Amino acid sequence: MIAGGGPVPRQLIDACRSNGRPVFVVALEGQTDAATVAGVDHVWVKLGEASRTIDALKAAHAEELVLVGPIKRPSLITLRPDLRGAQLLARIGMRALGDDGLLKAVRDELESEGFRLIGAHDVLRDALAQHGVMGAVAPDDLALSDIAFGMKVARQLGELDIGQAVVVQQGVVLGVEAVEGTDALIARCAALKKDGPRPVLIKRAKPQQDRRLDLPTVGLDTVALCIDAGFGGIAIEAGGSLVLDRAQIVARADQAGMFVLGVVPEQ
Amino acid sequence: MIAGGGPVPRQLIDACRSNGRPVFVVALEGQTDAATVAGVDHVWVKLGEASRTIDALKAAHAEELVLVGPIKRPSLITLRPDLRGAQLLARIGMRALGDDGLLKAVRDELESEGFRLIGAHDVLRDALAQHGVMGAVAPDDLALSDIAFGMKVARQLGELDIGQAVVVQQGVVLGVEAVEGTDALIARCAALKKDGPRPVLIKRAKPQQDRRLDLPTVGLDTVALCIDAGFGGIAIEAGGSLVLDRAQIVARADQAGMFVLGVVPEQ
Repeated sequence: MIAGGGPVPRQLIDACRSNGRPVFVVALEGQTDAATVAGVDHVWVKLGEASRTIDALKAAHAEELVLVGPIKRPSLITLRPDLRGAQLLARIGMRALGDDGLLKAVRDELESEGFRLIGAHDVLRDALAQHGVMGAVAPDDLALSDIAFGMKVARQLGELDIGQAVVVQQGVVLGVEAVEGTDALIARCAALKKDGPRPVLIKRAKPQQDRRLDLPTVGLDTVALCIDAGFGGIAIEAGGSLVLDRAQIVARADQAGMFVLGVVPEQ
Repeated sequence: MIAGGGPVPRQLIDACRSNGRPVFVVALEGQTDAATVAGVDHVWVKLGEASRTIDALKAAHAEELVLVGPIKRPSLITLRPDLRGAQLLARIGMRALGDDGLLKAVRDELESEGFRLIGAHDVLRDALAQHGVMGAVAPDDLALSDIAFGMKVARQLGELDIGQAVVVQQGVVLGVEAVEGTDALIARCAALKKDGPRPVLIKRAKPQQDRRLDLPTVGLDTVALCIDAGFGGIAIEAGGSLVLDRAQIVARADQAGMFVLGVVPEQ
């Protein structure tokens, strides 16, 4: 595993262990939580240290590889690539420092070394979002209209490699996610929302995205933030996003009168 | 004039007066600054009071009409339209509560009453952004690449009626404007920016937008915020945005080593 930030890498590690699957983790300095690798075979590398990463994975006899957890994008100045990392960066060019371009270049580099890339959802099978209402609360017609609009907006944001999430209320886009991340988006929209029917968080995978990379994720923290923000619900892409701790999420959302919905995107 | 918030309505009033052009102002409760209408013939109305607005404009013998200044979008619950306002809302429907849809419906309603709609730039002719570098500082190649990307992103945001502004740094979209407005976008991106080449604020008119409605505006406050945020420059649509107090803006930007650029959008 190459582990980014947040709680998902650890959940994946725990899932592997409970399945008896051996794990080796490449942790990224300044990105991965220390708790992620506690008690797990791992190495710390800097972003850009491509040779060290590949050497460590080979030494660990890794065959299947999963990239999971958000990675803060580096600046051109703070990034100190090794020779191989520099060659990689030179090849993809400046403009590819968007999430998607960078991830795809890293994926290609890793696959060229013979590692088989798998998705987090291949390990956390139960976490892949299903189609339909997940709890006791269902969206009304206005919410469904906001969701349809938000899915369209999120698709275009994804095509431009900007972000995955958007908040819509009463037909108006309250906020759009870019570098700040979903948590900051939710907090901002709490202050921007209007009276009346409540906002909806919509999150979907980038359409051109390799589903093995960076799937949208909804966890307990996301749900707690949406409840605090007074949102009416969360809509995520069915088959294209991860819902972690689903039973607890649904229980909390039900209690708050908030829906959690898996949506099949238009083709 | 139907006046929204911010300083532009007052600047327009002063421009009219110095040209000897009589002005009557419809000020919107909770939106227009009190200072805007000080010493000017005006009436205060609530958003949604369509009949009162039209009656007041007719009583003032208005012929040409300009809509200027941002208007905070109402919620469905706080909006208390009069009969005519309710009929208008029913006709345009919920989804048109985006900026652009709402403004166009209001425009059509006003034109059907015989008023001739003009743009703020028809009065503030000197304020329309010109093509090219406005001060002593020019963008470098990296900034030009960020601007080209930002113009493309802003175009799509505009097509979706989300917002007009975007901040790009080193090929990455730091932030996207929705309901929060440009000032909040700039402040947020100040905290999100990376080391190295500085971010650029890009602002353009929505492509489908009636140029007489809601042109993007850059004022001294915008420039001061961008300087405080450590941005490298501002790029706005030439012929499609207003630069207020240009001489002062250019002087301050020059002093801060920041460029101000008018860009002709790709067709």
